[in-house]
Amino acid sequence: MKNERELLMIPGPTIVSPRVLRALAKPILSHVSNEFVEGYAEALSLQKKLFGTDGTPFLLAGSGTLGMEAAIANLMERGDKVLCVENGYFGEKWEEIVETHGGEVDRVRFEWGDAVDVNMVKEKLGSNEYKLFTVEHVDTSTGIANDLKKIGELRKNTDALYVVDSVCGIGGMPLKMDEWNIDYCLTGSQKALGAPPGISLFCLNDKAWQTVEKRKSPPSDYYVNLKRWKPIMDSPKGYFATPATGLVLGILESLRIIFEEGLETRWKRHEVFSKAFQAGIKALGWGNFPAEGHNAHTLTVPKIPEGVDDAKMRTTMYQKYGVIIAGGLGKLGGKTVRVGHMGNDTMNDLVATLGAMEMSLAEMGHVDELGKAVGAMMKVFTKY
Amino acid sequence: MKNERELLMIPGPTIVSPRVLRALAKPILSHVSNEFVEGYAEALSLQKKLFGTDGTPFLLAGSGTLGMEAAIANLMERGDKVLCVENGYFGEKWEEIVETHGGEVDRVRFEWGDAVDVNMVKEKLGSNEYKLFTVEHVDTSTGIANDLKKIGELRKNTDALYVVDSVCGIGGMPLKMDEWNIDYCLTGSQKALGAPPGISLFCLNDKAWQTVEKRKSPPSDYYVNLKRWKPIMDSPKGYFATPATGLVLGILESLRIIFEEGLETRWKRHEVFSKAFQAGIKALGWGNFPAEGHNAHTLTVPKIPEGVDDAKMRTTMYQKYGVIIAGGLGKLGGKTVRVGHMGNDTMNDLVATLGAMEMSLAEMGHVDELGKAVGAMMKVFTKY
Repeated sequence: MKNERELLMIPGPTIVSPRVLRALAKPILSHVSNEFVEGYAEALSLQKKLFGTDGTPFLLAGSGTLGMEAAIANLMERGDKVLCVENGYFGEKWEEIVETHGGEVDRVRFEWGDAVDVNMVKEKLGSNEYKLFTVEHVDTSTGIANDLKKIGELRKNTDALYVVDSVCGIGGMPLKMDEWNIDYCLTGSQKALGAPPGISLFCLNDKAWQTVEKRKSPPSDYYVNLKRWKPIMDSPKGYFATPATGLVLGILESLRIIFEEGLETRWKRHEVFSKAFQAGIKALGWGNFPAEGHNAHTLTVPKIPEGVDDAKMRTTMYQKYGVIIAGGLGKLGGKTVRVGHMGNDTMNDLVATLGAMEMSLAEMGHVDELGKAVGAMMKVFTKY
Repeated sequence: MKNERELLMIPGPTIVSPRVLRALAKPILSHVSNEFVEGYAEALSLQKKLFGTDGTPFLLAGSGTLGMEAAIANLMERGDKVLCVENGYFGEKWEEIVETHGGEVDRVRFEWGDAVDVNMVKEKLGSNEYKLFTVEHVDTSTGIANDLKKIGELRKNTDALYVVDSVCGIGGMPLKMDEWNIDYCLTGSQKALGAPPGISLFCLNDKAWQTVEKRKSPPSDYYVNLKRWKPIMDSPKGYFATPATGLVLGILESLRIIFEEGLETRWKRHEVFSKAFQAGIKALGWGNFPAEGHNAHTLTVPKIPEGVDDAKMRTTMYQKYGVIIAGGLGKLGGKTVRVGHMGNDTMNDLVATLGAMEMSLAEMGHVDELGKAVGAMMKVFTKY
């Protein structure tokens, strides 16, 4: 990483604030020390505020995937039906987890890049045969954001629990768990929260917790059996398995940063990031992959025009300018690139990233007027 | 933590070297960057060396408990019989995990503090009805170390896989996975490895991997389904779930420190730590909890004499001297204390810890001659 001044602009892991890095570099505390226990409790309390819920927060060592599994392993029982609402790679990933745990998968699948058609979900839920339904807030594969609030209105007419994966949303885009009738919501530490990867964060509202309490059979997992963790989340001095003490305090610092900025301000900043990047790629003459009006604010996924070698562009961006963006995921490889702009990222980072993109494309003969794309982006920023 | 100069002498989490802390404080890398991928591969390669195996290493975000679950979830199938060899809190914990995964538990249980009687294990294994048997290397609740090598000789006469929990052993005490016929071995990052908690490390030998390959049914877990992780462990550029990039590089640094010291030297150092602490508590007139000749080298568990209030002693040690040791675990609360001495700990840390213990006891009226215990410890160190 040369002089450690490169710009990590992939859609997660994202840039971690020096404040968080300093917290991580502190001597490790005992997991039952007052200082750690108080820090853990503060993190859990800020987590609830971040999710917009009065429910129960869980913060465990593991990846976002573990939070997806915790939902299925605890809310669903063998033979239950689950509706997976899918419009991308991560939406489809739920199917494997449901099948692993002996559930029966049904799906409403949309083209990658298309938004979820709420009416089709409504129709499916009308049969009221599902134990739960899963929705992605943001599918990082396509850069789309689904309308969680509107989908949440369907919850009033179904008993199915509303399970949301907001790994690439929460902390960067509005999410109001209780207000939007979300029963279970998860995220990871390494996206819009701006902390390193390694921690899975999720919350259950009262209905979801009652479902866990009333299970006929115990979950088939041990580590993510939430009944075992609940006493520790209620009072973090308890012990079930050793918490990742250092990372927990790193996340606490990132949560404090979030609330110092203020949620509304932070959401607005991400919205401006998105608008600015959209303006930039438009000025570049590039198209946008996700359906119009459905852009996630945490990343931009432009379409690569015919004749542009995106791998070459990304290599130049990295080798010459030290800017790291991601290629297309899965079947979108070679068709899109993905630029993350979330968490601790600044306007300067975005200007530099789009600038590196322009310069690299210019070297490849794809740009006539250097500064046009960056100029369009800056126009958005100056009005902010 | 006042000025961050306290001594964390519990049996894990343990003191983390400033070198590791500096690694943790570095800007977060992309999980597919060459620098991270090379670091991950180096960590996995050092992990194999540490375990003494040519098998497959796994290094995942999670706690040691997750590594226990990974063993059961992947090696055992519903209805299989498992023999749990138990002489402490953690040995008994295996039962819950086996039951969660639909296995049938049988046990050889010894008193807490007693060593495992290898003949009784031999007798049990004679029936050859078990899919696997579990053994603790060190049970942190009692300070006992089991004779893994001798137990491993039984493996020649049984098809049952030999599964070892070395959370508080590896890196501090000899463990030679392949030589001792161990099929699956796990540890955590926060003990004798000297890294922060949050990472589960385990290895499977070829027999164990073949068992995973030949399963009739898939594991009931998703996140710890090892078939999904194997391609990433073989070539860490792959993706299944986001690795804890920062922690992985922290552990890499701690593994490098281990091999700079040299395994044999490190084992010897821990042996001397143990002898020195034993000499100290003997000079204090205190007894030792684990059976004679079976002390773990990574921690000391003295018996609290009649009339000594251990909570008061620990409070003084912490509040006045900034030294943190642990109380007795579970049913040993009030009967023992537990002092960890492993990983990055130094002789100076041990002298200071025993000194704080002596001073605190003196204030409570339990010590006549200050310096006697520390003197006995130092006598061992000077001969080292």
